[in-house]
Amino acid sequence: MKLPFIALLALLPMAQAAADSFSEQDLKVARQAISRAQASDLAYELVASLTSEVGPRPAGSANDAKAVAWAQAKLATLGFDRVWIEPVKVDGWARISERAEIVAPYPQVMAVTALGNSISTPDAGINAEIAYYENLEQLKNDTSDRAKGRIAFVDSVFARSRDGRGYGKAVPTRFAGATEAGKHGAIALLIRSIGTDHDRLAHTGSMRYDEKIAAPIPAAAVSNPDADMIVRQLKSGKPVRVALTLKNEFKSGLQSHNVLAEIRGSQWPEQIVAIGGHLDSWDLGTGAIDDGAGIAITVAALKMIQESGVRPKRTLRVILFANEENGIDGANAYAAAHGKEKHQLIGESDLGSGKVFQISTNVREAALPALREIAAVIAPLGIELGDNSAGGGADLGPLIRQYSHPSVALAQDASEYFDIHHTANDTLDKINPVTLKQNVAAWSALIWLAAQAEVEFGPSLKK
Amino acid sequence: MKLPFIALLALLPMAQAAADSFSEQDLKVARQAISRAQASDLAYELVASLTSEVGPRPAGSANDAKAVAWAQAKLATLGFDRVWIEPVKVDGWARISERAEIVAPYPQVMAVTALGNSISTPDAGINAEIAYYENLEQLKNDTSDRAKGRIAFVDSVFARSRDGRGYGKAVPTRFAGATEAGKHGAIALLIRSIGTDHDRLAHTGSMRYDEKIAAPIPAAAVSNPDADMIVRQLKSGKPVRVALTLKNEFKSGLQSHNVLAEIRGSQWPEQIVAIGGHLDSWDLGTGAIDDGAGIAITVAALKMIQESGVRPKRTLRVILFANEENGIDGANAYAAAHGKEKHQLIGESDLGSGKVFQISTNVREAALPALREIAAVIAPLGIELGDNSAGGGADLGPLIRQYSHPSVALAQDASEYFDIHHTANDTLDKINPVTLKQNVAAWSALIWLAAQAEVEFGPSLKK
Repeated sequence: MKLPFIALLALLPMAQAAADSFSEQDLKVARQAISRAQASDLAYELVASLTSEVGPRPAGSANDAKAVAWAQAKLATLGFDRVWIEPVKVDGWARISERAEIVAPYPQVMAVTALGNSISTPDAGINAEIAYYENLEQLKNDTSDRAKGRIAFVDSVFARSRDGRGYGKAVPTRFAGATEAGKHGAIALLIRSIGTDHDRLAHTGSMRYDEKIAAPIPAAAVSNPDADMIVRQLKSGKPVRVALTLKNEFKSGLQSHNVLAEIRGSQWPEQIVAIGGHLDSWDLGTGAIDDGAGIAITVAALKMIQESGVRPKRTLRVILFANEENGIDGANAYAAAHGKEKHQLIGESDLGSGKVFQISTNVREAALPALREIAAVIAPLGIELGDNSAGGGADLGPLIRQYSHPSVALAQDASEYFDIHHTANDTLDKINPVTLKQNVAAWSALIWLAAQAEVEFGPSLKK
Repeated sequence: MKLPFIALLALLPMAQAAADSFSEQDLKVARQAISRAQASDLAYELVASLTSEVGPRPAGSANDAKAVAWAQAKLATLGFDRVWIEPVKVDGWARISERAEIVAPYPQVMAVTALGNSISTPDAGINAEIAYYENLEQLKNDTSDRAKGRIAFVDSVFARSRDGRGYGKAVPTRFAGATEAGKHGAIALLIRSIGTDHDRLAHTGSMRYDEKIAAPIPAAAVSNPDADMIVRQLKSGKPVRVALTLKNEFKSGLQSHNVLAEIRGSQWPEQIVAIGGHLDSWDLGTGAIDDGAGIAITVAALKMIQESGVRPKRTLRVILFANEENGIDGANAYAAAHGKEKHQLIGESDLGSGKVFQISTNVREAALPALREIAAVIAPLGIELGDNSAGGGADLGPLIRQYSHPSVALAQDASEYFDIHHTANDTLDKINPVTLKQNVAAWSALIWLAAQAEVEFGPSLKK
């Protein structure tokens, strides 16, 4: 393709910059890591092993402890300089049984699942009429008493998109809906699953009660086809009654662990390039896309650098966080233990194996030329340069908010992620081996160059 | 588009033929029926009503009786000349509970469902090692005793295709696998779900024991991701043990009904153009694609003709068959009661709402010109002309085999059908309203012209 003169000019700063921040040797190692990643099955083998040999691993469960042992053993086998665990206190919550059915006007059994942290119903269940709300706002703004003594049903629809932006908007319904429903006198909350699929599998996820506002009520999600069924039956004009039985179990003060590994830096070992994912998962699936993929991608990215045979100037660290799903406890524990260490860059992989399409950052201005050069190195992977106002994932939150550590986000294609997210469908077959490799390639080049840059990336911009 | 001379010649026989078998008025009514069908929501409303107001309706269940009452009421409302029911004896089978898990080497809960007609396990379940078979042939040919005292696992993979041809090949594993496994000493049969999906929802379906060959053993299907899990664990080289508990219930000698409706013919009322689908469904879903769609399509097709205001020369009949899924009892009862009546044409719709892409037939040679003209009328719907060796669907079987009634098959795109078939996912959202209308359009033109043709279509060719 022939470029007009003006376009050639626009390319110059990038080309020039490329000569500024990194040596030819550093760029060569980055490109070799990309090639190595694209030929490596390591990430797939890791997520296959974790999902098959451990499977579901809710925080504080016996399987959570198995996952920690699995991770320690794997990381030791991979031969990193240091592998260790750090204790994380978690509150356990476990699903025992759940059942929901429409009992009138037209009886139908529904696919239902309790939201994480929901209390149980009475043993005999709850049998009450539905009070319909199109979304959380409508429930909040309801000044009538129609929710009183009823099951509030909140019907927010979550639309598919490449960047998964509908998720953030949908989550408050799940997280805080029970408190809002309780405040309006409802005796249970039922929500349309926060998911973009049409499967008879309900989506779980974390919720919390604000007992200062309302007494806790049981909270559950029905699958999208079952939410459609409720809506159709409501259209008959007849009252819709639902019977709901949930049995859940709480165990506070349990022990989990963050699992960590490092390749020690040669020049500035006290400066950390830290990436990771979360080791825990919900109980319904086997935690393949959420977040076996992130564990596999970030561990494999470090391994690709280790295999280059060249030691990075800064320390590369991978963090497998405990209990992201139901408390962000591992992230808080890491921040408390390591927040004061100098972090050159932090990053999180927690969106399955979808292709990375964009790199965005939150670093200081002086670091932007180096970041643009990194973006140029991974651009052949189909990754465009975003802006410098990246948000962090859940596990980066405490480090960014409390310590202003500089962060990077590799935005992944989330078009299909929320079909599967937090359901029994989260299994290994949902991992795309090709785009999984692309993720490893991008992260490996990125962390290597971040470790080599003369410029310090932090602190991040205030937001 | 300009056609070369040779192509124009090729079109001539069809154009000439069109003048032979049907009057311009008859062709006009057919084309108007197509337009009417494409503007009508009737079929969608029917399948929405059946799935929402009745839902799952296994033969002999309380919901089966509700479905019969629903159908009678709907057909009466639609104002056909005659609406009636005919008794059908069925054997009831009901799923009470089911659970399967891998207990070693790596414990995992699996999504499982009993096959229709399976006996229960002992209350304490069965806990045994897996004996792996790639397919039914391998089990049949096994001369070793490795299945003895084990759970035979048959892993046949079913590939997606437009015409669903893999299904016929896969079914014997489900239908007869338990007898074969029992013959080899297995204490239970587990199969990979016969489905093209990757959902954690197992596919049920009919099976039978041949007690002359082997004593009955429990039989169930695991979801495709769970079958993958078994395979991966087997690859570890360690024995894989599974715990399986099924509880099912048999009730013989129950009563169901075929539901029928007619538009009476003006000239040859004793000659019947009969189409239909089956009213029963499996218990896991709401029977939208299997076979609410077929019920809706064929009933709406008759209604489109009724709305033309012109009475057909032959009688149009719609048959809503009882218990197709677990015994073909309705089809046998219909054949016994009506097989000796003269049927001008029989057809069955039992493949969801997928687009019709081909018409094929099994009629006598003399009827082929008329059938080609009918094909030309529905060709604008994107339907090509197939051959004269159509197979019948399950409900046409007895009529074709015992009475050589002439039949037609409208082949539908089955690419996605077997993702959903016989699972909890068989719900209204799986109906495509656009292609549903295309089905109604094709059937309405077809049955009208079949009723008007001077030529008799039967008997069918011997096969």
